[in-house]
Amino acid sequence: MFNPVEKLKEFIRCASISTDSSAKAGMAAARDLVVDLLKSSGFKVDVVSIPSGVHPVIYAHRGGDESWPHVIVYGHYDVQPADPLNLWESPAFEPEIRGERIYGRGAADNKGPLLVHIAAITKLLEREPDLPLQITFVIEGEEEMGSPSFLPFLEQYKDRLGKADCVILSDTGSPREDQLVVTCGLRGLMLLDLIVTGPKMDLHSGLHGGVLRNPIQALTEVCASLHSPDGRVNVPGFYDDVLPVEQWERDELTKLGQSEEEYREFLGIPAFHPAKDYTPFEATRYGPTLEFNGIGGGYQGEGTKTVIPSKAFVKISCRLVSNQDPVKIRELVYNTIKERMPKDVTFELVNQHDAQAYVVVPPGRSNTPKDQSPVLARAFRATDSAVTEVFGNAPLYLREGGSVPIIADIKRVLGLDSMLLGLFLPEDNLHAPNESFHLGVMEKGILAVEKVYEKIARG
Amino acid sequence: MFNPVEKLKEFIRCASISTDSSAKAGMAAARDLVVDLLKSSGFKVDVVSIPSGVHPVIYAHRGGDESWPHVIVYGHYDVQPADPLNLWESPAFEPEIRGERIYGRGAADNKGPLLVHIAAITKLLEREPDLPLQITFVIEGEEEMGSPSFLPFLEQYKDRLGKADCVILSDTGSPREDQLVVTCGLRGLMLLDLIVTGPKMDLHSGLHGGVLRNPIQALTEVCASLHSPDGRVNVPGFYDDVLPVEQWERDELTKLGQSEEEYREFLGIPAFHPAKDYTPFEATRYGPTLEFNGIGGGYQGEGTKTVIPSKAFVKISCRLVSNQDPVKIRELVYNTIKERMPKDVTFELVNQHDAQAYVVVPPGRSNTPKDQSPVLARAFRATDSAVTEVFGNAPLYLREGGSVPIIADIKRVLGLDSMLLGLFLPEDNLHAPNESFHLGVMEKGILAVEKVYEKIARG
Repeated sequence: MFNPVEKLKEFIRCASISTDSSAKAGMAAARDLVVDLLKSSGFKVDVVSIPSGVHPVIYAHRGGDESWPHVIVYGHYDVQPADPLNLWESPAFEPEIRGERIYGRGAADNKGPLLVHIAAITKLLEREPDLPLQITFVIEGEEEMGSPSFLPFLEQYKDRLGKADCVILSDTGSPREDQLVVTCGLRGLMLLDLIVTGPKMDLHSGLHGGVLRNPIQALTEVCASLHSPDGRVNVPGFYDDVLPVEQWERDELTKLGQSEEEYREFLGIPAFHPAKDYTPFEATRYGPTLEFNGIGGGYQGEGTKTVIPSKAFVKISCRLVSNQDPVKIRELVYNTIKERMPKDVTFELVNQHDAQAYVVVPPGRSNTPKDQSPVLARAFRATDSAVTEVFGNAPLYLREGGSVPIIADIKRVLGLDSMLLGLFLPEDNLHAPNESFHLGVMEKGILAVEKVYEKIARG
Repeated sequence: MFNPVEKLKEFIRCASISTDSSAKAGMAAARDLVVDLLKSSGFKVDVVSIPSGVHPVIYAHRGGDESWPHVIVYGHYDVQPADPLNLWESPAFEPEIRGERIYGRGAADNKGPLLVHIAAITKLLEREPDLPLQITFVIEGEEEMGSPSFLPFLEQYKDRLGKADCVILSDTGSPREDQLVVTCGLRGLMLLDLIVTGPKMDLHSGLHGGVLRNPIQALTEVCASLHSPDGRVNVPGFYDDVLPVEQWERDELTKLGQSEEEYREFLGIPAFHPAKDYTPFEATRYGPTLEFNGIGGGYQGEGTKTVIPSKAFVKISCRLVSNQDPVKIRELVYNTIKERMPKDVTFELVNQHDAQAYVVVPPGRSNTPKDQSPVLARAFRATDSAVTEVFGNAPLYLREGGSVPIIADIKRVLGLDSMLLGLFLPEDNLHAPNESFHLGVMEKGILAVEKVYEKIARG
């Protein structure tokens, strides 16, 4: 069995920035490291290049009797860019342990958590070479660039992967080192740009001001119409498919013990503004949103330029929950904008990508589907007991406000649910300088996850 | 008497870009050219440096008997920058005559029109050395940078300049080479920036979306509230001081013979949107406005970034008419924004500059003030007959939608009205590549303006 911390150092040294075309060597080194580890543990490994893709997917399989449970373990070997480099206390790709943490780009996202699963399975298989469990690792190299190859990969490997029972991964967060969260839902996404055109060229506001509707005015009028004073999205039909939040989910959330006042101060806002029927903490996890991610038009420099711009735009994103379909939501938003846009300007809508929301209900909750995979249910129960035993507290079962599109893709293409065990902490600085991973969480994580896989195998 | 076209070529060759600190030689050369011309015509010339200023003002005086009429002639010797240079058909500072026009930066703004006045007066004084007319030239070098020294200069020369009867200048436009306009009003300005702050840092819209009001949302809500569906500015009290448009002004405007349909096509808009009670052509000249000159916030690049920005801003400008006071309007807009801004965000308002509107009524119109300067009235009548005689059509008396702050400053500090004879044409490309001045307008302009000054002197 390898030394997990030393191996993580080695993994971090591979500068595997997927979006940086000059980091090919780092990508290859990271991939080789993972491939070697999995081969050493007896996996049959394929490095799968997708024609349209940039970085291959590592597909590693440990077969066995068809009757054995079969889990897919997901992870990614690529990392975010490290800049701004000058804000790092130690170099991003030279791992350094300070206190209880190991610092370096990718330490928490996703190299540390991925190694937790690889180490746990390696240990377990060394101890139990005949463990009755089929395991397939799917470890991509394009997560930080939006996983462009992942869907084609799923389609290509659909027959093989579709036979598995569920997916297990650690690419979400938990609030404290002694309180893990099993993420039971992620919000979907629908993104589009709205571009409004007024006059065909920028105009002098003295010579022409007063005769026409400024495209910024038209844009703000439409944007302002998209919310009601009660905080809800004012798009007819927007909430039609939103399922009510179950009482157990509301209760689970209160166990987090977060303070609204602390959260408000963290955000630095005078007051919250959640949609009605949601508390602040519920709003970010269980409620859908329509946000403006960016707006622009006209003169934005110092001082003044008295122009009436030809164009103005806004970038809109909707976070979607439970049954909301991004395609349907896009249509509703389109129609609403079209209906409300003043007729004295023109506009266009440009689609960006979208993602389905994802919800999985742990076994034994009031709304657990009756046809839930028994292996998935076993994975949840195994996780509950192992985490309770090793971390001292039962995990919380919460939905998260972010979006992990591949989880919904897996559900849609393979029909499989995922169990997401959060291993990074708020202090880990994901996507930021001085990213780190907590060594205590790593150590305990390996212990707990080893138990999880064992229990899934043994029942 | 100098050759006006040759002198204009020489003047254009002086690259007098006031905002370009590397163009000091061009500024000095342009200034020397004007000083020499005026000295040759018998003027006593002072080059007045204002301590806070960059480029001095040329003050040139021809005195005489105290009882003689006294006119101030205003102009500026600086020009706009010439970029983008690659769009010029001939180099910006190498004058070239093509067809009926002379091309070069500053040809129309303001070197050509200024030379019209200098040439006319030079000719007139050569012919009539004892002309009973006091003339003071005030020719600044900072017009294209917002005239920062002009107000201090006026204050410093208040005693001398205040004894004059009126101001005459040509720094406005006319629609056609055979149809000049005497500009009888200019709109005022009030400019401010509104900056809205939501959370204290940019937030991930997945993790935090739904709990707070996005500052772009707050901004668009307030912006959208600032107009009514009828096109009027929805700020209580905004129209309180707006004087009704006189029937003669409406009638004068129809004489322009402009086509609404052609104007709409020029703008490239599906429909006009003037405030109620104004026709499209009236709206740009006689109506006040509130425009958004620029808006910005969050992510404005390609693709998507799902951020909730910390800040968003809009740049607001109001064009003001007749009796509207920019200070009062600023207060009204401030209070309206403050009242309507959601309380779950914070905001600040940053003042930019402002300018008073200006209106002068030609003699004999229904609303001409009874205390109008007899010399000003004479200047108007002289212009009417001289322009009719030389150009074949009587001038039109129209207000213009733009703002020339120095005109209102002159009125406020010196108590003097201005007669603005428009000498540049829409095709002259002011502030743009291939600026030009029409040689026919120049030639006829000198003839007409010579008659104007003679008639003012002779009564």
